[in-house]
Amino acid sequence: MVATSQRGWSGEPGELLRVGEGFRLEKVDPDSKPGYDGKKKDGAADLAAGADELDELQERLYAQSREDPSAPSVLLVLQAMDSAGKGGIVRHVIGATDPQGIHLVAFKKPTPEELEHDFLWRVEREVPDAGYIGVFDRSHYEDVLIGKVRGLASDDEIERRYDAINAFEQRVVDRGVHLVKVMLHISSEEQKVRLGKRLERPDKHWKYNPGDVDERLLWPRYMEAFQTVFERTSTPQAPWYVVPANAKWYARVAVQALLLDALERIDPQWPAATFDVEHEKARLAAS
Amino acid sequence: MVATSQRGWSGEPGELLRVGEGFRLEKVDPDSKPGYDGKKKDGAADLAAGADELDELQERLYAQSREDPSAPSVLLVLQAMDSAGKGGIVRHVIGATDPQGIHLVAFKKPTPEELEHDFLWRVEREVPDAGYIGVFDRSHYEDVLIGKVRGLASDDEIERRYDAINAFEQRVVDRGVHLVKVMLHISSEEQKVRLGKRLERPDKHWKYNPGDVDERLLWPRYMEAFQTVFERTSTPQAPWYVVPANAKWYARVAVQALLLDALERIDPQWPAATFDVEHEKARLAAS
Repeated sequence: MVATSQRGWSGEPGELLRVGEGFRLEKVDPDSKPGYDGKKKDGAADLAAGADELDELQERLYAQSREDPSAPSVLLVLQAMDSAGKGGIVRHVIGATDPQGIHLVAFKKPTPEELEHDFLWRVEREVPDAGYIGVFDRSHYEDVLIGKVRGLASDDEIERRYDAINAFEQRVVDRGVHLVKVMLHISSEEQKVRLGKRLERPDKHWKYNPGDVDERLLWPRYMEAFQTVFERTSTPQAPWYVVPANAKWYARVAVQALLLDALERIDPQWPAATFDVEHEKARLAAS
Repeated sequence: MVATSQRGWSGEPGELLRVGEGFRLEKVDPDSKPGYDGKKKDGAADLAAGADELDELQERLYAQSREDPSAPSVLLVLQAMDSAGKGGIVRHVIGATDPQGIHLVAFKKPTPEELEHDFLWRVEREVPDAGYIGVFDRSHYEDVLIGKVRGLASDDEIERRYDAINAFEQRVVDRGVHLVKVMLHISSEEQKVRLGKRLERPDKHWKYNPGDVDERLLWPRYMEAFQTVFERTSTPQAPWYVVPANAKWYARVAVQALLLDALERIDPQWPAATFDVEHEKARLAAS
């Protein structure tokens, strides 16, 4: 459900962006803004209004979990090519909520210790506890994206991983975690512009890595790997959403809408007091 | 140094709030606003202006550390009686920066595993990595506050802990961590009002714990325990700051100023490119 305070939406982002039967990534226009009729300034206003809603829902989610360790949580999984805007989502969508309710993990190249374990080992430990909004900036999907494109594992192992991911995500969902899996989709041309800006500005050089161009040269193979990921791991309980991301403002308001949607489906409630309120008022008054 | 954009300050919060020789907690008025001449609305404006500065300094701090694992970090330690406003600091001061550069840890009652180790074990593992702003919501000081007041350890053990804390903090500082240790100081009367509000509002009941009144009844002993903490652990390399906190807005702008001060002393710089910029521009153009 799109919240009533969101003025730019004319359609349900959850419906329009979900990867379903017959999905083809190459048919998604990275410049498009599915379901959104507003302009950039409407997007900014909607993002601010949505931040207030997200904030209240997040507090309720957290509160609800305090007396119930089996209460639900939310996990946003972000995957994308370099410079597609994952950091901007974390900063502008997630950053608008109370940091105390967020569990953010940026997965880097695996460490030697991590490589000694199954690829899901480091991921499973970071699944958010009850009441938290978890955010994975990259995730176990790297192991079937760069892992596949760069041949870091055998074909058989890559095949095994899709099934292992589905089984893992089923377990996570069964524990009450609402998964929101998002690919931010930019065009190759847009990436070129964004990487170029990082090279132009000395205060952005630290964000640039020569390896970014190496991966960029493999763009078509990455798109194929994403397509396979969608076909193998977009399930009813843990669907993928592909968010066109050439317009950063659209991507942000869309991801926020997907999170609001997950939280509204949870509909978290303030928990009832586990103590006698009147008795406590008397104790406090006497203290 | 108070930043020029901060209009309400007439003195240096770092100087005015620092615990030095002869400090007596009972002489600090929780209603006072040392060094700040502005009103509440000035505080809100200064907090917003300071958030922009904090944001840039945090990004520089993080950037600087990317190529240098020995780069500095900042660690804010927050201690206070219940309802003094730690959560508000996290939300309104820390929450205004990019979550990607923050390492926030809320220390709860120790788990059985944690109790099997020395009291510093769980703390040492959470010291922020290079480039991060760490925040401890409660900390190793609980072990000499509630630990002392409630007699959770022997007198000898409590004595040992002050020295262990000083040695630990010296090691941390030597590693390049800038420690900012803050006690938010409210009055007993103000706490009564705040706990009362939690009891009045069903959406705040989850924040109330009957144990809060139990601790409240020991208020004078907690103040004594804080006084001893200051005498034993406010060192030149890791001083304590006592921030009057009956006015939430003052506490927020003051803690922000202490963080800005730490970051300005670090004066983090954008790192130089570790690659040939022109060569990369050519590679990108050809890609």
